[in-house]
Amino acid sequence: MTASDGSDIQTLFDQVRSGARVALAQAITLVESQRPEDLPDQAKLVGLCRHEDSISVRLAVTGPPGAGKSTLIERLGLHLIEEGHRVAVLAIDPSSEKSGGSILGDKTRMEKLSVAENAFIRPSPSAGHSGGVSEHTRESISLCEAARYNVILIETMGVGQAEYRVQKMVDLLLLVTIPGAGDGLQGIKRGIMEIADMVIVNKADADNIGAARRTAAELKAACRLAAPGENRRIVLTASAKTGEGIPKIWEAVSDLISHRKKQGSFSKQRAQQDKAWFDDVVESQLKRRLESAERLEIARDRLTSLVVSGELDPVSAAGLYVDAVLRHPFQ
Amino acid sequence: MTASDGSDIQTLFDQVRSGARVALAQAITLVESQRPEDLPDQAKLVGLCRHEDSISVRLAVTGPPGAGKSTLIERLGLHLIEEGHRVAVLAIDPSSEKSGGSILGDKTRMEKLSVAENAFIRPSPSAGHSGGVSEHTRESISLCEAARYNVILIETMGVGQAEYRVQKMVDLLLLVTIPGAGDGLQGIKRGIMEIADMVIVNKADADNIGAARRTAAELKAACRLAAPGENRRIVLTASAKTGEGIPKIWEAVSDLISHRKKQGSFSKQRAQQDKAWFDDVVESQLKRRLESAERLEIARDRLTSLVVSGELDPVSAAGLYVDAVLRHPFQ
Repeated sequence: MTASDGSDIQTLFDQVRSGARVALAQAITLVESQRPEDLPDQAKLVGLCRHEDSISVRLAVTGPPGAGKSTLIERLGLHLIEEGHRVAVLAIDPSSEKSGGSILGDKTRMEKLSVAENAFIRPSPSAGHSGGVSEHTRESISLCEAARYNVILIETMGVGQAEYRVQKMVDLLLLVTIPGAGDGLQGIKRGIMEIADMVIVNKADADNIGAARRTAAELKAACRLAAPGENRRIVLTASAKTGEGIPKIWEAVSDLISHRKKQGSFSKQRAQQDKAWFDDVVESQLKRRLESAERLEIARDRLTSLVVSGELDPVSAAGLYVDAVLRHPFQ
Repeated sequence: MTASDGSDIQTLFDQVRSGARVALAQAITLVESQRPEDLPDQAKLVGLCRHEDSISVRLAVTGPPGAGKSTLIERLGLHLIEEGHRVAVLAIDPSSEKSGGSILGDKTRMEKLSVAENAFIRPSPSAGHSGGVSEHTRESISLCEAARYNVILIETMGVGQAEYRVQKMVDLLLLVTIPGAGDGLQGIKRGIMEIADMVIVNKADADNIGAARRTAAELKAACRLAAPGENRRIVLTASAKTGEGIPKIWEAVSDLISHRKKQGSFSKQRAQQDKAWFDDVVESQLKRRLESAERLEIARDRLTSLVVSGELDPVSAAGLYVDAVLRHPFQ
């Protein structure tokens, strides 16, 4: 297995397709690249991935720090592998720097899953996206699906913004919480509750079982109150430590996905997400290509310093810049 | 006072400057307009507002539903007016539709403040921004400052995204919470805690005083834990109902602002915010002007339907669209 230098995207893709994890890691690194000259290769690579996605399930796993997301993902991942699935984990790691073509990174947190045959774990830096979702998470999902991983788990940091971003990329959003957290429910968490498809009260083991059940009951009641008549949120208890309740999570996910596929809402949501993806890529590509145009860079720098010094207001400055962009053709 | 039709921006501005609330309401309606043909007037109006902002204080007030934000703002506003300040409240109202040039809208929630001589209350729809911050909140702030309001209070819904957006527009972010909410602190609220400059435990009255103090103590301890060595968050208790603790909030705000002005970080933050404002306006203006270009609209529609039908992947489609934008000049 040799490294692709990006000149032969088809070869790299074939290696990804064959299940080579090194190639998959390299391909993700390529789609994460911010260099304008990588744009054509990125588009080609993502283009090759299409029509591979219909049998996959995309799940976001979010929740507060300390809720045990990683341990839960490892348990769920190991259970899924036992059931014959291939599991990819995209873990958004706020602390990690871009790690080049490394295979498993330093995700020692998922010790057993990281050495499993049918698992792929990729820590991605959340560079430039404070929400904890990488700009290229969608492209990475496509690549994992091309490599025939059929369950894609996306772990986010859970700091508020992340959930709204990741929701546009997945089929279901799972919120992991802990016993007793129900008390803060009328707090800011409510916003997240409203976009979560499923809430899992983790750490339902030993002395915590009673508290976990109470929290689950409170959460159910709160959901009923918050959205009467609507589809109820599914609330489950589980223990990532003992494994109790883990198979039930997958059952509930499968049931919900089947239900949505029958309804037609599954593919409808994916089509809408593709549209949103298109809009986002247009925005970011425009930004990158405008930033890399030298003539515009000078104009932008000059306008920015006038704004920072207070000599020109931001709105007038932006108007001048946009005029410059649109009036003259450039490469 | 007659309505400006936008043809004489200088006249409208002069009316705003003279303190006419009808004119201010009209001016805000103009900057909130999404019509491309209003862009030059918007830029001219915002340009006229500059150099008026140095003596103002911009505060965001955020927190969960039911924390009593509106009541607290009313109390604080009335206190400030007594002290000789002029207070503008920009309340982001998720339910309200654009209300044209209405003066006070239907904000009956702030009954006393809304009839006060030196107060201006503007409910703005959060159209297109689920975060609860209007796209044009910054322009509205400039207009209020031109109308010589020197304390600008921005009320947001507090659903997660809002805080991150509004933080880029204000000098200080105040988080309002209630007794007992400290239990959920290790939850998602932590993200908000980290960007709040001050936390106010509201409803510290009657039977709640003890609980409010305990919550404040917990919050202080949690802040110390979360950010050891860093500047501590200021945590205060108050009762919007009785008025207890309200003057202390303003004292703490004034002290913090004075401290930052001495340090030089106040004006530095405002300059950075102006730069971010410029970047945001560039992005949104480009978007609006591209959307209004007929030739590009056809291309975009065609590409979008290929994406939605699955015939073309979003990344390749975006590449084709951006090529079309950048290769040909247009109006």
